[in-house]
Amino acid sequence: MIDAAAVERYLHQQIPLSLHMGVQVSACDQAGVRLTAPLAPNINHMGTVFGGSASAVAMICGWSLVYARIAALAFDTGLVIRRNHMEFDSPIDGDFTAWCAAPDGDTLTRFDTVLADQGKSRLELSVEVLIGERRAATFVGVYVARRT
Amino acid sequence: MIDAAAVERYLHQQIPLSLHMGVQVSACDQAGVRLTAPLAPNINHMGTVFGGSASAVAMICGWSLVYARIAALAFDTGLVIRRNHMEFDSPIDGDFTAWCAAPDGDTLTRFDTVLADQGKSRLELSVEVLIGERRAATFVGVYVARRT
Repeated sequence: MIDAAAVERYLHQQIPLSLHMGVQVSACDQAGVRLTAPLAPNINHMGTVFGGSASAVAMICGWSLVYARIAALAFDTGLVIRRNHMEFDSPIDGDFTAWCAAPDGDTLTRFDTVLADQGKSRLELSVEVLIGERRAATFVGVYVARRT
Repeated sequence: MIDAAAVERYLHQQIPLSLHMGVQVSACDQAGVRLTAPLAPNINHMGTVFGGSASAVAMICGWSLVYARIAALAFDTGLVIRRNHMEFDSPIDGDFTAWCAAPDGDTLTRFDTVLADQGKSRLELSVEVLIGERRAATFVGVYVARRT
């Protein structure tokens, strides 16, 4: 898999809104992907983070976990989101973090095998949106990778 | 209720990301709220609309329908999203529209009554994301208004 700096570079080039939202990839490894984003460009009418920003950053977080995995494959693979659900538990009143823990090994192996065999595979990922250590929102997304 | 120009002004001032995404309020009346946004600031790695942008514009669309309703009330009311679900059916390969049809009169009356009586009320709204007349994604959001 590719590292945090490479994922961040890709995001900023390919999804320019991620650059405008101030998204940074602070970790991308076997444990999972962690993004950070500042309040200022994502602020809303309450002086807290706009829900659409929080959702978009969480969506990118899960997307990055799959992207980092498939970027090293020998064949080109498109990756899109199919559906997502977001629960907002409390206001996000400052700079925030999105954390997507890597699924267990069996789930990842199944994802890889189905992608290699059938040319298309899907993965459901959970992403927590955090203020410091406090969880403020939870995102669940289904991503579909397809050999191109 | 307030009109499209007033809602657009409020969005651009209070949620600056809406301005960056190029969101325009093309209709806001008894029938519903229609927003438009261009592809360019919302583009992704596939040359189509980033799912996070589509979701954010849909979220703002539903939000605007409730906002336009409560902005005229005699008391101050905060309005936030509690949860949302998004289904992406096909790539959004150009400038796009979000359309939130107003709920039926009974539902709106119940929303108003509960807000007036209990100081807090919620409304579930569906928003279609369209390319021309074709539906490309569907968003369902639950919004909570609270007297402040």
